[in-house]
Amino acid sequence: MSAPNVQWRLAARPVGLPKPSDWEYVEEPAPDPGEGQLRVRLEYLSLDPAMRGWMNTVRSYVPPVGIGEVMRAGGLGRVVESRHPEYAVDDLVSGMFGVQRYAVADARGVRRADTSLAPAPVHLGALGLTGLTAYFGLLDIGRPEPGQTVVVSGAAGAVGSVAGQIARIKGCRTVGIAGGPDKCAWLVDELGFDAAIDYKAGDLRAELRRHAPDGVDVYFDNVGGDILDEVLRVLARGARVVICGAISQYNAEQAPRGPANYLQLLVERASMTGFLVFDFAARYDEAIAQLADWLHGGQLRSREDIVRGSLEQFPDVFLRLFHGENTGKLILELTD
Amino acid sequence: MSAPNVQWRLAARPVGLPKPSDWEYVEEPAPDPGEGQLRVRLEYLSLDPAMRGWMNTVRSYVPPVGIGEVMRAGGLGRVVESRHPEYAVDDLVSGMFGVQRYAVADARGVRRADTSLAPAPVHLGALGLTGLTAYFGLLDIGRPEPGQTVVVSGAAGAVGSVAGQIARIKGCRTVGIAGGPDKCAWLVDELGFDAAIDYKAGDLRAELRRHAPDGVDVYFDNVGGDILDEVLRVLARGARVVICGAISQYNAEQAPRGPANYLQLLVERASMTGFLVFDFAARYDEAIAQLADWLHGGQLRSREDIVRGSLEQFPDVFLRLFHGENTGKLILELTD
Repeated sequence: MSAPNVQWRLAARPVGLPKPSDWEYVEEPAPDPGEGQLRVRLEYLSLDPAMRGWMNTVRSYVPPVGIGEVMRAGGLGRVVESRHPEYAVDDLVSGMFGVQRYAVADARGVRRADTSLAPAPVHLGALGLTGLTAYFGLLDIGRPEPGQTVVVSGAAGAVGSVAGQIARIKGCRTVGIAGGPDKCAWLVDELGFDAAIDYKAGDLRAELRRHAPDGVDVYFDNVGGDILDEVLRVLARGARVVICGAISQYNAEQAPRGPANYLQLLVERASMTGFLVFDFAARYDEAIAQLADWLHGGQLRSREDIVRGSLEQFPDVFLRLFHGENTGKLILELTD
Repeated sequence: MSAPNVQWRLAARPVGLPKPSDWEYVEEPAPDPGEGQLRVRLEYLSLDPAMRGWMNTVRSYVPPVGIGEVMRAGGLGRVVESRHPEYAVDDLVSGMFGVQRYAVADARGVRRADTSLAPAPVHLGALGLTGLTAYFGLLDIGRPEPGQTVVVSGAAGAVGSVAGQIARIKGCRTVGIAGGPDKCAWLVDELGFDAAIDYKAGDLRAELRRHAPDGVDVYFDNVGGDILDEVLRVLARGARVVICGAISQYNAEQAPRGPANYLQLLVERASMTGFLVFDFAARYDEAIAQLADWLHGGQLRSREDIVRGSLEQFPDVFLRLFHGENTGKLILELTD
């Protein structure tokens, strides 16, 4: 019954950006599914900045990927063998399947993707953990009110682009920070952000003051580093800083840099709060229904940045995240 | 009618610790009180770490003290002339009177100190802004629950010693961080902390793990710097970090250091929140009544570290705060 499988395993702990020798490409038969398990043939692999963190040994919210283990990743695929009564062959499911062609997964860690709601890849984007992260982070942690100013960093990325659109839908003044004029134009022209700041263009400080003249009520941070420090300078009284990620720090070879202006939290009676989407699992259905409504109503757009090819390309495609090369959700579609 | 007055004015913006040339000692007649004002003869001057911040030009919650202006400070004194119907000569009042012998102050910025509740200096300590800061910061921002672990830095200082005692009263496991064995012994033996860690003695990291084996639910931070970074490593799930101050950074000659481990907020779904006691002014009476009850019941102790002398000593006495030389509330009593 065993199918042939290919997978990428972690060969070494990267220092800085992952390099080829940090990975090992392995071909071997996949194990058979046990009772309650599914065998899934992956069609789409989700590429996320958080994956870089899982490659380190520092204390985190999940154990690090072990040396010699399959790299952890989310994905979307078809059930090819089911030993669970609620799943049938050909069902489209998402889950943490790892960077491999075939996964054997417990059915309880899997969600069915309803393609009547949206095309398959959207279930890794706005209707997947990406959209859920934006939804709960912005609404439950950021608690924006209509008319308030919301700033999102990494705004042209997967989570940021959804978070900013939700802020707009909720009646907030929405300012995105992104790298490069194309991303900024997309945020304003296509996604309806009120303004976008190209942090590579120059004076982030002045641009923040220009576009958030009354201060920043909610800052949804995906990047950390200098940008976090600059936004802390312009917080409004009672601001909420939502710590979603810190992509600028994930490949740092020294200890990460802390936000030097954190005492602005005291000056402005503000808060900085971290969250993980997994804590909201009991409300995923509610959120997906709302996100799907917005998608169908044209208020929300999901953009997937899809690279079509084979699993072998994974190490290179993954690096696009850290070179700022993706717009929207980066996905490797396995077409071979 | 003008009384002679002496005062300390800010002569220059200090770089690092304030030095003698940053101050100017001035003798000149005090102005007469206008309608609605009081003339107050100071008896006790409150010395607080936050005063150092007011000497800088960085954006803060109050304007910086201007060059040539009387140094801002809280104090306690007797009304010697009243042009307000609710105050009479000899009333004992507290307010932001500045570093001077005589202050002319608006009655609305002043509170009457009730010596039937506690001796005069306690109205700058546990029943003053010090106690109020500890009360609202710990209870409203930290929200400790019985059985949780509360860590307080600067625990032998004015605010920290009250915050830790309130945590103990509320049924929390209370761990203080302080400098030196005498302060640590005082915290445990006299104030009833469950444990105290001498950060100067060595291994803060190991001691935190020993005394907070299940992680830190509430961290009340008065110091910032390395100690904040170490406590961030041992936060419990859902922890609240209360930013009350950052005495380790107030005299820094470089930009302040941010907490490098701030991403633990994400790992532990924790928050870091700043606050200012002034925002709770509408609830001062409630808090003072509660603090006075605890004092009378023997559950709470207010310790004032009183230096008796003249206003001329102010610059030297002020520096004791930054050399870790005070235990409890540092006060300069004007006995001359």
